[in-house]
Amino acid sequence: MRKRFTLKEYREGVLSGDRTKLSQAITLAESALESDFALASDLVQEVLPFTGKSIRIGITGVPGVGKSTFIEAFGQMLVEQGKSVAVLAVDPSSQKSKGSILGDKTRMEKLAGNPRAFIRPSPTGTTLGGVTSKTREAMLLCEAAGFDVILIETVGVGQSETAVKSMVDFFLLLMLAGAGDELQGIKKGIMEMADGLVIHKAEGENIASAKKAKTAYKNALHLFPLGENNWSSPVMTASSLTKEGLTEIWEMILKYSGQMHESGFWSSNRASQRLAWLEENLQFLLGKLFLEHKQVQEMLSQNRTKVETGELSPLSLARDLINTFFNPKKI
Amino acid sequence: MRKRFTLKEYREGVLSGDRTKLSQAITLAESALESDFALASDLVQEVLPFTGKSIRIGITGVPGVGKSTFIEAFGQMLVEQGKSVAVLAVDPSSQKSKGSILGDKTRMEKLAGNPRAFIRPSPTGTTLGGVTSKTREAMLLCEAAGFDVILIETVGVGQSETAVKSMVDFFLLLMLAGAGDELQGIKKGIMEMADGLVIHKAEGENIASAKKAKTAYKNALHLFPLGENNWSSPVMTASSLTKEGLTEIWEMILKYSGQMHESGFWSSNRASQRLAWLEENLQFLLGKLFLEHKQVQEMLSQNRTKVETGELSPLSLARDLINTFFNPKKI
Repeated sequence: MRKRFTLKEYREGVLSGDRTKLSQAITLAESALESDFALASDLVQEVLPFTGKSIRIGITGVPGVGKSTFIEAFGQMLVEQGKSVAVLAVDPSSQKSKGSILGDKTRMEKLAGNPRAFIRPSPTGTTLGGVTSKTREAMLLCEAAGFDVILIETVGVGQSETAVKSMVDFFLLLMLAGAGDELQGIKKGIMEMADGLVIHKAEGENIASAKKAKTAYKNALHLFPLGENNWSSPVMTASSLTKEGLTEIWEMILKYSGQMHESGFWSSNRASQRLAWLEENLQFLLGKLFLEHKQVQEMLSQNRTKVETGELSPLSLARDLINTFFNPKKI
Repeated sequence: MRKRFTLKEYREGVLSGDRTKLSQAITLAESALESDFALASDLVQEVLPFTGKSIRIGITGVPGVGKSTFIEAFGQMLVEQGKSVAVLAVDPSSQKSKGSILGDKTRMEKLAGNPRAFIRPSPTGTTLGGVTSKTREAMLLCEAAGFDVILIETVGVGQSETAVKSMVDFFLLLMLAGAGDELQGIKKGIMEMADGLVIHKAEGENIASAKKAKTAYKNALHLFPLGENNWSSPVMTASSLTKEGLTEIWEMILKYSGQMHESGFWSSNRASQRLAWLEENLQFLLGKLFLEHKQVQEMLSQNRTKVETGELSPLSLARDLINTFFNPKKI
């Protein structure tokens, strides 16, 4: 049995920056138990006044691009500058492949050992909705614990990056030089989502091709529309091996932060993220209650394929499901 | 009072291709009345076996790019080839500006007068969820009425294009030459969503800059990842004035259709669109019931700003709202 603490114990532990209590608080927030949910949401509410001061950075890229190596090197550079850094991961697929939790830990050995760093592997939730909602809470708890920078890692191949984009201030895409096969793995739409692109592994004989790729992407992105923040996403090169380019990336993020604070986008973006989070939570909770309804479940499993094949109208099934949910027939 | 018909009358009217009955059936589907909803969903279910045979094309681009002119010219080319064409519009903003309904009608005068064409202005629904769901139904009704090609027009500046993308087979983006200010209006993310890009108004002294833009976008898109359909979105130039390039666009769409039928993407895409439609309907209906709940409404309006400013945790409010919805306190 996992030990629970009182709301006060969690709150004071988190606010004092106690790593063990922070970990336990995140575990509480990640719990699927009804009773834990109430306590976790009270905890988040109580620490809320102490959140919001960090820079939240999402980092994405296909497997093999070197996300963990990058986070290790980038995080170390930040702690050497006196910053404290929390690393979270959103990877709904890690439940399938397992291993990635251990993998992360070993790959980020140096950073993990630093007293100013905190590394939290992927939560064990099963749905994307659950995982991302829990990551937001984990992020707030880390902020309340006093971390200056939150790095949220996600694999750029599924749907998690849209979720991560919706909870961070800056979204960084790591890529490899050569616009060939490596690209196939990236999900369409991610490039336009990124606030900054980094051609990673720009070291040794890769440097030339990385620089070439940088120019090509720079020209290409120039043709694409700017978002409402009016920010033109820079393209940079970096190596986590030689540490080349890491300072420049941090400076770019600071420049972004400065511009967005000035324009007001920083806070307006966070305000809409909070509303989106409310909507997400409502949809998740409503959907959960809905799908846990036994008769709804049965009706859905019996008719799902009929909708897919076009035999049954989604509209008709939706109507029947809703009627069943609110007016269940007595058996 | 609008006249209602029986299910049988609607069904037979639509299936026989009766324009008036088709219009009335779409009006029924667009109705916000509870009683109409039941009849409409029965109607959609009954005509379902006669749907799915058309090519569904979404057309987007910022105001001023010439969408209506393009649809008029493109649609006329299709009817001259013996095809029948239905034009639908998704534009949630048109309720605000009004006028666009009349505007569409006058701008598409020639096409509207053709016996093989059918033009339906934006529905008068108020929410995006409502509008898009209704557009799907209108699309199916048009298919059941025997139309070969469905053109769905949307303004590429809001959120409607994601919705339209999720209901069509092919998504076409119209642009203007010159990667400068025109671009600012397009929503970020749309370029990567498009299955084909057309530099419109490539006529007269615009031809040279249109060709230049074409090359630039072609090179840029080459750097972007392919979607799961493995289709590399072509960039073309066209003029609705001189009709130059219109045949080529149609040929490109036919080529896409051929490749996607062969790879199986055409049907797998439609299958996931149907499931997405089910989910959309469920979310819409659940959300509607939820937001119509008086105590939920009150709690939401009292606390919405607190969530936006970060005073109240979205998680806490979501929990309270859900509890209120399912266990309303007696007044």
